[in-house]
Amino acid sequence: MSIEIEKKFLVKSNEYKAFAKPVLFRQGYLSTSFERTVRVRRYDDKGFITIKGKTNNCSRLEYEYCIPIEDADNMLYNLCVQPIIEKIRYFLVYKGYEWIVDEFLGVNEGLVVAEIELKDEKECFGKPDWLGSEITSDTRYYNSNLVNNPYKTW
Amino acid sequence: MSIEIEKKFLVKSNEYKAFAKPVLFRQGYLSTSFERTVRVRRYDDKGFITIKGKTNNCSRLEYEYCIPIEDADNMLYNLCVQPIIEKIRYFLVYKGYEWIVDEFLGVNEGLVVAEIELKDEKECFGKPDWLGSEITSDTRYYNSNLVNNPYKTW
Repeated sequence: MSIEIEKKFLVKSNEYKAFAKPVLFRQGYLSTSFERTVRVRRYDDKGFITIKGKTNNCSRLEYEYCIPIEDADNMLYNLCVQPIIEKIRYFLVYKGYEWIVDEFLGVNEGLVVAEIELKDEKECFGKPDWLGSEITSDTRYYNSNLVNNPYKTW
Repeated sequence: MSIEIEKKFLVKSNEYKAFAKPVLFRQGYLSTSFERTVRVRRYDDKGFITIKGKTNNCSRLEYEYCIPIEDADNMLYNLCVQPIIEKIRYFLVYKGYEWIVDEFLGVNEGLVVAEIELKDEKECFGKPDWLGSEITSDTRYYNSNLVNNPYKTW
């Protein structure tokens, strides 16, 4: 169990790609409720199931467990709410902080968001030039909500 | 991943207790939807998360993973739909088949059901004297439904 504190932003340009490593992520949801989400995810050769509680400010309870990748694939295509989320995730570091940038594919193509994980909600961090406006509290951008209300339909 | 085939019955008398071992089970749900349930369970000193698909006849997809018991307890009381399910489970064998009998507690007190797991939907098995009518396809008796519609309110 952990407490996850993260902030989320739109992305203005693709400069973030210069030094970033891209990885394909596929994820789907077994629960997309406001109170609790249950996510199945696979990337590289790894599978995970992740349970997250309700967001208070920008933090929430999180539990994550490794699962066999065959189970993850099977649940993504046979049990999760459809369509699943597909995105290219870029990992990069700016002024000592790790950022992740997600380029969504499929029904959410065109959407690019950046996230930073913090130890404290009030922590200060440098903002890279390619960073757009903050969307931490805009629930439309929750991955769990992009399943039921994809970006292309906005 | 496995396919679970089980039949469920009401229980007419408490003769099943004679040779059975009782274990306290606590379980709660992170999803109680018809399409997919996500269950957190703890008994003895073990914790589990279990995902089940939609029931077709009496079989359905099932995935189960061990999790730390502290996580199970934390999710049961802080994340699962309330109230959680509490029951005394009895394990016993009758004519070569393993039966489990659940005596529900709390908001489901008074309900006692017996389950048998089969390899094939058409498999034959002996019925003990204490067994009542079959309720396999009565969705009210699903543990996931007893959360939202407890037995005492029927």
